[in-house]
Order: sequence, then C-alpha cells, then structure tokens
Amino acid sequence: MEKRELLYEGKAKRVFLTDDPNIVIQEFKDDATAFNGEKKGTIIGKGVVNNKISCKLFEMLETKGIPTHLIKFIDDRNMLIKKVEIVKLEVIIRNIAAGSFSKRYGVEEGTVFDSPTFEFSYKEDALGDPLINKYHALAMKIATKEELKTIKKYAFKINEILKDYFIERNVILVDFKLEFGRTNTGEIVLADEISPDTCRFWDKDTKEKLDKDRFRKNLGNIEEAYTEMLKRLS
Amino acid sequence: MEKRELLYEGKAKRVFLTDDPNIVIQEFKDDATAFNGEKKGTIIGKGVVNNKISCKLFEMLETKGIPTHLIKFIDDRNMLIKKVEIVKLEVIIRNIAAGSFSKRYGVEEGTVFDSPTFEFSYKEDALGDPLINKYHALAMKIATKEELKTIKKYAFKINEILKDYFIERNVILVDFKLEFGRTNTGEIVLADEISPDTCRFWDKDTKEKLDKDRFRKNLGNIEEAYTEMLKRLS
Repeated sequence: MEKRELLYEGKAKRVFLTDDPNIVIQEFKDDATAFNGEKKGTIIGKGVVNNKISCKLFEMLETKGIPTHLIKFIDDRNMLIKKVEIVKLEVIIRNIAAGSFSKRYGVEEGTVFDSPTFEFSYKEDALGDPLINKYHALAMKIATKEELKTIKKYAFKINEILKDYFIERNVILVDFKLEFGRTNTGEIVLADEISPDTCRFWDKDTKEKLDKDRFRKNLGNIEEAYTEMLKRLS
Repeated sequence: MEKRELLYEGKAKRVFLTDDPNIVIQEFKDDATAFNGEKKGTIIGKGVVNNKISCKLFEMLETKGIPTHLIKFIDDRNMLIKKVEIVKLEVIIRNIAAGSFSKRYGVEEGTVFDSPTFEFSYKEDALGDPLINKYHALAMKIATKEELKTIKKYAFKINEILKDYFIERNVILVDFKLEFGRTNTGEIVLADEISPDTCRFWDKDTKEKLDKDRFRKNLGNIEEAYTEMLKRLS
C-alpha cells in the first residue's frame, strides 16, 4: 500500500493516508523529546527500534486477546495500521515508583508497589498533559463510561502480559504509557506504540535503565540501550 | 470541658487537647490563606462564621446518616470534636467547573457537569497538595480500599444533601473540599469544616460569589459574603 498525504505529524511519528480511508501508515522518526517538548534531540536508529518492538509486542498482545491498531509490519520504520480516532487520554500503569510519580508524591524511585497503579493524563500538550481521573474525563466528555471501563480492563491485562514477557528477557517493566483509539466501527483498540520511548525498562540484575530515561537524564549510551532492548526481544 | 495544650495549629484553625484523650476542641481563626499559603490575610469574623456554619451543617448531616467528628458547639469560635487521625486526602466534589479544575483542563468556569466529579488530592503542603487517585493512595498506603470506598460513598451523599440544602437558600453549591478522619475505634467520620473557606457558593440569581474566591481574587466585600452565608443558613 502506497503512502499518500501526511495526515498528522507528532513528536516521534508521522501518519500517512493510504488509498483505503480506514487504513493509514505510521512512520517512526529518530526525533526525541522530553519534558513536554522542552528537551529535544535525536536518537539514531530509535525509529527502527521502536517500530520493530511495537510491531512485535502488538502481534503478541493480539494473540492474548488485546485488539490493537496494527495490521502489519511494512519495513524498518513503517507499520500499516487501522485509522483510529485517538482517545485523548494517556493511560499510565506503574509497578514501581519513578519519574513524575516520585516527583509529584515524594516517593523514592524504585519503591515497589503491592499492586500496580493506574492513571489517566489528559492528552493536551498546551496544558502539559495533566493528571486526570475518570470523573473528570466523563464530565469533559473525553470518553464514555463504557470506553473508560474497556481501556482500564485492557491496560491492566497488558501489564500482566508484558511484565511476564519482559521478565523472561531479564527486564523489569517499571511503568509504561498506552494510548487507545476508536476504529471506524467504534471499537476500542490499543494504538500508538509500546517501546523504550513509552516504557521504563530496567535490567533485572544491574537495574540499568534501558529506555528514554537515558535521554531525559543524559545518562549516555542511549542508542545502545534501545538496541539492547530490541536484541532482548529478538 | 477546658482547653489544655495546643495539639496542632493549621492555617485557619487550632486544635487543643482536653482532659479526655478522645476529645479535642477545634478553634477557628480569622487567618486566611490561598494558593497553598502564598497569599495571606485576615478576614474579620471569619472564624465565627465558619464555626457556626460548620456546626450547623455537621448537625444536619448527622441527622441524614453521615457520621462527623462534631460532639457539640461550644461558643462563637470553638467546637467540641472527637479526636481523629486525619486521612491525608482532600476530597473534592465539583458540580460546576471552577478554580483549579478550569485552569488545569482549560474548561470555562461555570460549565455545568452532567454528573458531579470526585477527586482526591494528597494532603501534603510541601508538595502543593497534588491531585492523586485511588490507585496511588493505595500504593502509598494512605488509606485502605475499604476506607476509600466509605469516603467516596459519604462524599457523594453529602453533595446530594448539601446541593438541596443550599438551593433552598438560593445558593448554588459549585464545589467543595472535605476531609475525613479515623476515630479511636477506626470509624471513618467527616472532619475539618464545611464553610465558605472550603466550598464555592454562588448566589442563584446573581451568580455573585459568596466564598473564599472573594479573597483569592480580591473581589472586595469579603466579610459581607461570609456574613451573608451565615444569614442564609440561620
């Protein structure tokens, strides 16, 4: 399927129309941003790694009953996906305290939770993607009650699947962000990507960070961390 | 019952021990603060108004099945209360968009919600009382699952009772903050206060603000607004 006009350009991806109105192509860039776009940079090869990891994880999740936007892997930087309307909520599951959670609540990074936490943030760059809850989301008509329930159910299930999947690869899944979309038939499906850009991964033995925190915190060996994650999944 | 040592001094109230270890006296001050203590001032007579309104509302809520910390009204500025351990969560119910909600999500003040919203903030001045959700509160062991359920049930019920109570007095209950405590037997009871300091009240006809927003926004006639609210409840 050929790429037609650019439909949308985000911080790390571009989406192109195809000749089928219900199908688009998601292309992964090497551009990296952090802190709501305040920090900008390039991570060479990131787009390839994130596309390959996302395709692999989406395929695996589909086999476990999670519907995703993925149709198929096209090439290094491109995946063929269902055209969806993105629900304006970022869904964050945390198994261990880190990042904005630790900062916001004064909880030491690395604190392991008895049960995973679940949160929404309102996907609105101009407002800094603020934390939001289901009552707010309903009041603002961001999603229906039924959609929020479906999203929560999938998110917790994805966490269980991914935690096991990664630990077998000697990686601790600390936390991650998901986005969901509505297909043309109104079905809620997992969208966007699952990659070192959207997850925190720690090596099980060394606790070394294998994700975008290396970029956020200038820890060096950024490209190597992304490549290492791809290697562990292959 | 006599006031003994000062147990705790907050921004708007002091709590004194009595000779009974399970009973304390809550004294209301005229000190006013806003924006997490950044703005400070005095609202003459506020303590008297807030004590009288809180006693009146707590008594009324008790008759409707909501347990509170109130034992009895003592005098203008003092109420006798059960000694409780305050749950470190502020509970906010909103019927209409205003204040931090409008700012955080870019929703116009005055937008009426189809259903009330419910939110927690983590009661921790040093962190600016950040928004928090039940998963976070459980992970941080701020309260038990059962306690959070009880608090939510009471909060929604209080909203229904207060909305009706105030509309009969030509006042719209826009939003309000509650705090809950654990008694020495572990019972969850409504604590703190319910007053123009902790609620947004708008006159039903003129939409004039009759609450602490007059202080926050330098709208003038602050004392008059507090006195007016006491008058409407008498």
